[in-house]
Amino acid sequence: MTEKLDNFIKRWARISRLEQTAAVLGWDMETFMPEEGVKPRSEQIALLSEISHQWLVAPETRCLIEEAENESSDADYFSDSASMLRVARRLYEQKVKLPEGLVSRIAGTTALANSIWIDARKKSDFSLFAPVLEEIVGLCREEADLLGYQAHPYDALLDLHEPGLTTAQVEELFDKMKEELLPLVREIAGRTVQSEPDFLTGKFDIAGQEAFGLKVLHDMQYDFRRGRQDRSAHPFTTSFTPYDVRITTRFDENDLFSALFSTIHEGGHALYDQGLPVELVDTPLCQPISLGVHESQSRLWENIIGRSRGFWSHYLPVLKKFFPGRLDRVNLEDFYRAANRVRPGFIRVESDELTYNLHIFIRFEIEKQLIDGTLAVKDIPGEWDGKYRDYLGISPPNDALGSLQDIHWAHGSIGYFPTYTIGNLMAAQLYSAAVHDIPSIPSDIEAGNMATMLSWLRKNVHRHGSRYTCTELVREITGGEIQIKPFIEYLAVKFRDIYR
Amino acid sequence: MTEKLDNFIKRWARISRLEQTAAVLGWDMETFMPEEGVKPRSEQIALLSEISHQWLVAPETRCLIEEAENESSDADYFSDSASMLRVARRLYEQKVKLPEGLVSRIAGTTALANSIWIDARKKSDFSLFAPVLEEIVGLCREEADLLGYQAHPYDALLDLHEPGLTTAQVEELFDKMKEELLPLVREIAGRTVQSEPDFLTGKFDIAGQEAFGLKVLHDMQYDFRRGRQDRSAHPFTTSFTPYDVRITTRFDENDLFSALFSTIHEGGHALYDQGLPVELVDTPLCQPISLGVHESQSRLWENIIGRSRGFWSHYLPVLKKFFPGRLDRVNLEDFYRAANRVRPGFIRVESDELTYNLHIFIRFEIEKQLIDGTLAVKDIPGEWDGKYRDYLGISPPNDALGSLQDIHWAHGSIGYFPTYTIGNLMAAQLYSAAVHDIPSIPSDIEAGNMATMLSWLRKNVHRHGSRYTCTELVREITGGEIQIKPFIEYLAVKFRDIYR
Repeated sequence: MTEKLDNFIKRWARISRLEQTAAVLGWDMETFMPEEGVKPRSEQIALLSEISHQWLVAPETRCLIEEAENESSDADYFSDSASMLRVARRLYEQKVKLPEGLVSRIAGTTALANSIWIDARKKSDFSLFAPVLEEIVGLCREEADLLGYQAHPYDALLDLHEPGLTTAQVEELFDKMKEELLPLVREIAGRTVQSEPDFLTGKFDIAGQEAFGLKVLHDMQYDFRRGRQDRSAHPFTTSFTPYDVRITTRFDENDLFSALFSTIHEGGHALYDQGLPVELVDTPLCQPISLGVHESQSRLWENIIGRSRGFWSHYLPVLKKFFPGRLDRVNLEDFYRAANRVRPGFIRVESDELTYNLHIFIRFEIEKQLIDGTLAVKDIPGEWDGKYRDYLGISPPNDALGSLQDIHWAHGSIGYFPTYTIGNLMAAQLYSAAVHDIPSIPSDIEAGNMATMLSWLRKNVHRHGSRYTCTELVREITGGEIQIKPFIEYLAVKFRDIYR
Repeated sequence: MTEKLDNFIKRWARISRLEQTAAVLGWDMETFMPEEGVKPRSEQIALLSEISHQWLVAPETRCLIEEAENESSDADYFSDSASMLRVARRLYEQKVKLPEGLVSRIAGTTALANSIWIDARKKSDFSLFAPVLEEIVGLCREEADLLGYQAHPYDALLDLHEPGLTTAQVEELFDKMKEELLPLVREIAGRTVQSEPDFLTGKFDIAGQEAFGLKVLHDMQYDFRRGRQDRSAHPFTTSFTPYDVRITTRFDENDLFSALFSTIHEGGHALYDQGLPVELVDTPLCQPISLGVHESQSRLWENIIGRSRGFWSHYLPVLKKFFPGRLDRVNLEDFYRAANRVRPGFIRVESDELTYNLHIFIRFEIEKQLIDGTLAVKDIPGEWDGKYRDYLGISPPNDALGSLQDIHWAHGSIGYFPTYTIGNLMAAQLYSAAVHDIPSIPSDIEAGNMATMLSWLRKNVHRHGSRYTCTELVREITGGEIQIKPFIEYLAVKFRDIYR
């Protein structure tokens, strides 16, 4: 009875396995590949991407999807068959609209832009980056037009990263957040001390940092039979299948927090990928929902858990044992406060929970204007600086600390930034729903037991794979929409308590 | 003028890159892959092998080869174009003859045979392995018939590993070797002491072993910008392109020599792969000639250099520094003798230079009879034991130390063993030619300078890629055929000197 569906599943598995292979090549490139391997490696990856793209957009794929759709036309909307065909059709429709010429122009331009951005940032001169960024904006606009949209061209780009979410929804959420967040940031930032506490200065040996990070990963129930941690220039998580999900980190002898929180962050991503439904491996459903949902997992673990008082009430004594004599006189409150220092700054990736989203608002607002043509590329630095003054009350002293902050635009990733904030909002909603269902979670964490937290995520998020969209998942769990309230309340309570 | 050749080269590059990718997946599987990754990994590798096989045997490939052949029909036999088309056609003709059904039956049976062999060996019971080996012999015979041969079905299988070499040639070489080797082994074995010297007993810390091995690799000019060394259950070398050639080793705290000589051995393989002509990367010529030639490189470095008195006159003092206090009282002669201990034994991979080839003769003779049907699988143990008595004067006490010694047959690798001996013969011939051309090589090695040796190999072997066959290469270098004399003389002089 399911012959057509089986045919579709077989073809999709082949496409998936090619993508998994490309991911293995990518992981190797970032971790162990010898330096001269880079050129052949790019050619290998390009070839695999080409084949998997061709297989995906081939008429045969469309035909298999259609036949399977007809066969299972009476299946429930959220059934395995209907869901996997829905996800597959969405991806197919998306990719088939983009001609090979455009895809390769984007690949070529962004490859070039990457090194131009590096150079421009080194020289702190936005004007060096502007011409290629103008090209990229043009290509993204072209992409948006081909993909199609109802209200705003930015919708099409956003949909690539966060299926189903619209620019209007993001605007509404962000506007409401601003109303609450800007006064809160002003209130808290006025009370904080800018300098780093003494106990964090000096060196923390890397073997100790690594061992402690591994201990936390173990406690988070990251499954080392299905994963491993290595080092790379920038921390990342990569998943081939739920059976093989790897994370990386980097260590800084002078910074105890950097590797630690990045390990918890990547661990959160990895738990999601390891928890995807293995019985659906190689189908369209054995995938994360979106970047936003992925980020909700990493931030829930990194921030809501990893920067909580409860977490450190258990782990500070453990940490002290990993650095004998080094942290003896530190008390929980000082450590907790240090892990939650609020500092309006220029660098998004180093920002705290409270100010983080302000960086995102700025990028989103600029991106949107770039795409609908209301802002010229050359005017970005002025716009950027103005917004930093308005939202964060600080003025970037140069382009390197200003409009050249993030590499994302050089990669053509316009429409990506909002997913970070969506992730923050969802993390708070999910955590609040989890504690509602399992009230012992906070005390479990205080006892170093993170299994209850994970079990809730497994059951309510991970095992669904990509059956739901982000909004459908939130509805399924909370009965409502993505909301700012749980997140804002979480921030207000936490930071007013710390900086009272 | 070379449009057709360019078309051929472009297609071949795509096939090569898929094979490189499969090799990366294989390397990862043996080194870093988490344990649960094995099933999806096999599926990824199977898919890549399927695609690259399909691309190779597609009519389009044949057509591109033919058109390019016509275009460059007046090119010299050893020119780039003629050579790459010759190699490509040989591979194409070989693969196109094997129907997909047979290929997948071989894959399925050998996958099964692998675990059956492990179990049979553990239980030391050949009869458990016999049924599946019978199937494998049948499949190899079928393969030989499809590939075609002139004199002996074994020719077809041998040709897969050592292009152009025939069973008759191997027989002639091996018969001559036996005449010289058997008396020499008897003469030397009678004079040697079986016990391990005291200074090798006890533990050698692994960090020291690793650091010394890396030092030797550096001195051999193994290029770490184009490679790396990791650990795996069995040491191996894998090459994606000359830009990325990786080796592995394993360490045994109780055995100083195991990792050391395996590192030099794999280093020899890797120098060959790193020295292949990069200007021909992704073409059929940027490949090693054959298993035999590959083995000539590893054995030249491991045995002729790595087990020479000259090498240790330089490296023993260095080694002592890596193990402070551990080897202080060892003199060069004792160490050199320990590195060249002669012990007729049951285990090929642990055997010395003098007896090694006797193990190969036995396997070759049995394989040949299996393939032409003059020996039944069930009679292997009797035949095996008889030959060990005849050639080595020892009698395997059980199947595990007898006919279940090697895993090769379980992998379907019949026709592979002779290449080990061909490698030994060639190593001696090449070394002798090198010293003729550059008389300073032995004294350079004594001074810890291996650059002259490598430069000769680069120029005379590596840079040719697969332009020549094994016999053509030997002819090019020595003006004659593969000969046993340089090897036998090398052994006689060396071991009579040690065991005088």
